[in-house]
Amino acid sequence: MFMEESQKERLRKQFEFIQEIDKEKFIGRQTYLSDGIRKENDSEHAWHLALMTILLSEYANEPIDVLKTVTMVLIHDLVEIDAGDTYAYDEEGLKTQKAREEAAADRIFGLLPEEQRDRLRGLFFEFEEGKSAEARFAHTMDNIQPAMLNHATDGKAWVEHGVHLSQILKRNVNTKDGSKALWDYSFENFIKPNVDKGKILDSDNN
Amino acid sequence: MFMEESQKERLRKQFEFIQEIDKEKFIGRQTYLSDGIRKENDSEHAWHLALMTILLSEYANEPIDVLKTVTMVLIHDLVEIDAGDTYAYDEEGLKTQKAREEAAADRIFGLLPEEQRDRLRGLFFEFEEGKSAEARFAHTMDNIQPAMLNHATDGKAWVEHGVHLSQILKRNVNTKDGSKALWDYSFENFIKPNVDKGKILDSDNN
Repeated sequence: MFMEESQKERLRKQFEFIQEIDKEKFIGRQTYLSDGIRKENDSEHAWHLALMTILLSEYANEPIDVLKTVTMVLIHDLVEIDAGDTYAYDEEGLKTQKAREEAAADRIFGLLPEEQRDRLRGLFFEFEEGKSAEARFAHTMDNIQPAMLNHATDGKAWVEHGVHLSQILKRNVNTKDGSKALWDYSFENFIKPNVDKGKILDSDNN
Repeated sequence: MFMEESQKERLRKQFEFIQEIDKEKFIGRQTYLSDGIRKENDSEHAWHLALMTILLSEYANEPIDVLKTVTMVLIHDLVEIDAGDTYAYDEEGLKTQKAREEAAADRIFGLLPEEQRDRLRGLFFEFEEGKSAEARFAHTMDNIQPAMLNHATDGKAWVEHGVHLSQILKRNVNTKDGSKALWDYSFENFIKPNVDKGKILDSDNN
C-alpha cells in the first residue's frame, strides 16, 4: 500500500471534519417527528431537506443548481455543533445567534483542507444571506419541512409554544421567494388547517 | 392563490412520500455514534454519507456524477422502513433481505409521481447491483463510514458482536472498487489499529 504523505495529510483533515460533524446528530430541534413523541435532530432534518430539494426543485421560482442547493442544506446547521439550535421564536437567543454561528463556522469548516473550507464556509454564508436562487430555495425547504411535520403531529410543537399565526407569517416572509408554489401549498395544507383547528393562535380571533 | 388541479395532485403525491420517509429516522443501525452511547439511525447515516460523497469524490477510481451518487446514498436505506435493517453480519437475515427490500421499494417509491418513482427506484436497484461507478463509490462510503465510527468508539460495536477480521474483509471485498485510496486509508487508520488492539478478532491469532 502506497500513499503520498501530502494525500495522507489531506485525508486526515477531511476525516477529522467528517468525524467532527457526527456531533450534529446530537443537536436537538423543537420539531416533533411524525410519531409525535421524539423530536428531530439537525442531521435528520438536513437529510430530509436534501431529499426534498432533489424532489421539489421543479417548483423553484428561478432555475437552481440542485447539487449546490443540496450541499447547502446538508451543511446549513453544522454551526449549531458549537452555537446550539436557536428556536425560531426565541427572541433572546436570536440576538446573539449571528456572532455565535460565525465563530463556529470558522472553527468547524476550518478543519477541512483550505479550498474545501472556503467552499463550504462560503455556501454557509450564502445560505445565511439568502440572496442567491439556491439560498432562497434552501430557506423554502428549511421552513416548509417543520410545517409539514407540525401538521403531521396535529400541531403539537405549535401548541406547546403557543405560536401565533403572525409569528409564522413573519418567520415565513421569504418562503415564497424560493418557491411561490411550495409556499402556497404549505400554507393551504399545513398551516391554514391548524389555524382553523385552533392549534395555531390567530391574533385577530384569540 | 391559484394552483392547477394536476399540480396539486402531483404535490400531494410528493409530500405523501416526503412525509412517509420521515419513518427512516426510526430505523436503528448497529453502529454507535461517536459518543459511544446512542446508536445511529438510517437517516443520520445517509446524511453523513451524502456529505462524505461531496467531500471525497476526488478519490473515486473513476469519475462519478456527484449529484447522482448523493441521491443514491440519501435513498439507499429507505426500503428498511418496511424491510428493517439487516446487520452486516446477520447471516439468517441476509437470506431474506433481497425479497423484503424489493417489495418495500415498490411500495415506498410507488408513492411518488411516476417518473420520480422510476428514477429513485432505478437508483436504488443500481446501488444494489453495484455495477456503475456511482454505485461502487456509494458502497465505499457505506462501508467506510461505520468503520470510522467504530474506530471512534474504540471498536465498541465490533467487540459487542465479536467480529472477526475475516468477516470485515469479506464485507469490504468491493470497497476498493469505488476508491482504492479510501479503502487503503480506512484499513490503515480504522481497521488495522483495532486488530492490533484486539477489538477486532484475527482468526489466525485468536
